Amino acid sequence: MSAASENSLSVVVLAGGVGGARLVDGLDRVLPAGSLTAIVNTGDDFEHWGLHISPDLDTVMYTLAGLSPEDRGWGIDGDTFEVLREARRRGVDDWFQLGDRDLLTHLVRTRALGLGESLTRTTANLCNALGVERPILPMSDAPCPTSILTKSGEELAFQEWLVKERAAPPVSRAQHGGNGETTPSVLDALKAADLLLICPSNPYVSIDPILRLAGVSEAVRRTPTVAVSPILNGKAVKGPLATMISEIGGRPPSAEAVAIHYEGLLDGFAVQHGDSFGALYPTLETNILIQTREDRIRFARELIEFARNLT
Amino acid sequence: MSAASENSLSVVVLAGGVGGARLVDGLDRVLPAGSLTAIVNTGDDFEHWGLHISPDLDTVMYTLAGLSPEDRGWGIDGDTFEVLREARRRGVDDWFQLGDRDLLTHLVRTRALGLGESLTRTTANLCNALGVERPILPMSDAPCPTSILTKSGEELAFQEWLVKERAAPPVSRAQHGGNGETTPSVLDALKAADLLLICPSNPYVSIDPILRLAGVSEAVRRTPTVAVSPILNGKAVKGPLATMISEIGGRPPSAEAVAIHYEGLLDGFAVQHGDSFGALYPTLETNILIQTREDRIRFARELIEFARNLT
Repeated sequence: MSAASENSLSVVVLAGGVGGARLVDGLDRVLPAGSLTAIVNTGDDFEHWGLHISPDLDTVMYTLAGLSPEDRGWGIDGDTFEVLREARRRGVDDWFQLGDRDLLTHLVRTRALGLGESLTRTTANLCNALGVERPILPMSDAPCPTSILTKSGEELAFQEWLVKERAAPPVSRAQHGGNGETTPSVLDALKAADLLLICPSNPYVSIDPILRLAGVSEAVRRTPTVAVSPILNGKAVKGPLATMISEIGGRPPSAEAVAIHYEGLLDGFAVQHGDSFGALYPTLETNILIQTREDRIRFARELIEFARNLT
Repeated sequence: MSAASENSLSVVVLAGGVGGARLVDGLDRVLPAGSLTAIVNTGDDFEHWGLHISPDLDTVMYTLAGLSPEDRGWGIDGDTFEVLREARRRGVDDWFQLGDRDLLTHLVRTRALGLGESLTRTTANLCNALGVERPILPMSDAPCPTSILTKSGEELAFQEWLVKERAAPPVSRAQHGGNGETTPSVLDALKAADLLLICPSNPYVSIDPILRLAGVSEAVRRTPTVAVSPILNGKAVKGPLATMISEIGGRPPSAEAVAIHYEGLLDGFAVQHGDSFGALYPTLETNILIQTREDRIRFARELIEFARNLT
């Protein structure tokens, strides 16, 4: 990669929910102001109670704001659930866990979008109100709904499959809707990037939705790109990925299976101790479990160092 | 009025917020099933946080559901304010007090209206979920926004004037927007009515918006109609009415001033002890303060008896 020093390095991260948020959080502590942009999957966005919910954007935003719980991948730490409790009392759909503080995010977003504001602008304003200074860019301002085609031939909206159906129906493939357009902000960030990082997020439903947008895979090909494996010693840290790799990819879940999925796109790959699998890419083998802030910072440093030494 | 017995009497109430809710609550305990319909002002309806809020419909609904606080005219008893607290933290508009349980009502309503359901149908579903069996009909399914023209020439949406400005700017007049159309349900209820009651609500901003809709004042003229004074011994029980009578009507606030406002529409009038003022209408002079449920029931009985004896 270019000889840019860490100080002037422009890093763009492609991010899904929890894994994305944790890597971005670590990088946020390591990289100087102005050098980090997160491009976040909006394929999971959906409407619930008439509100526009952006699960991945919110997870990244809450994590950078220091509001995320340690023990779960969504919502705000210590949030209350009074509105949800009332929904239960009245027989209103309660399958999606909406906390009261979290709900305000969706109310503000829905109102702003209803007034014609872009999701990009709305996200910036939400971040601003929570003191988050790093740019968090939705991958698109247009709806790009991911759905799950099940082996039994049903098509389910992603959150319905994941939350309502608890990811139980076996998956044939993920489908990506929408017009395929990203935003000027995303294209500008990609253009300025010295380094692209693909977070340890679900390739099928978090990263592929970003990669398929016009101009993104071209940027990945022309820019040094390092992915972090979302599979550690055969297991996903969170979520249904391990099962999806077996069901969609037809192979046992492993870091290698993820690397093969990204074939042709990467210049380097970071895996958990014990997960290296040969010479497909230059590999950083370390502790990539980044639940604590200390681990996030340590790993962010190692990852940047690894990427800078790629040539 | 007709010789209909109390059992077969079909009573329709024109209602605003608190005064309307309390009278409807008393009548609800006194009249048999199928004999009471409330037609409720929606001129105060407004949008806040992107939600459709119907203050008077909700006050009547919560009161009949037994959820209203004794000590204030809005919201749900014992409600929490977690979402509002978060709004304050983030610098989001917090001038309208939205409780968490109350918020669910607005979420459900806004979603249903967004899906094309009528306000009439939506209100019936909300009532049903809260166990309210009496029909509560919005006066119209179309927006009919009431605004306040101030003496200084400003036009303020009603809730902004009332809540945000604390009813401080002196009023030149109330203005009523919209297409002037009521609903088939309202017209059917009026057609079947043996007796119309005008609640002790604000004539300018709660009752006039109903009376001006196509077909309503005609129904009032052809049906025995009794109003209950919202002014007791020169004062309003709640809200800005006393000042509005001085400012709009140019007279001191009194039951008589209200009676004059309704001139030509009434067949009887109920006033507080000491407030009778001569022979404009047959008058029921009693205790019309109906804060407690006992007083609501007692007064409802007296009012029905009084109305049945009008000829």
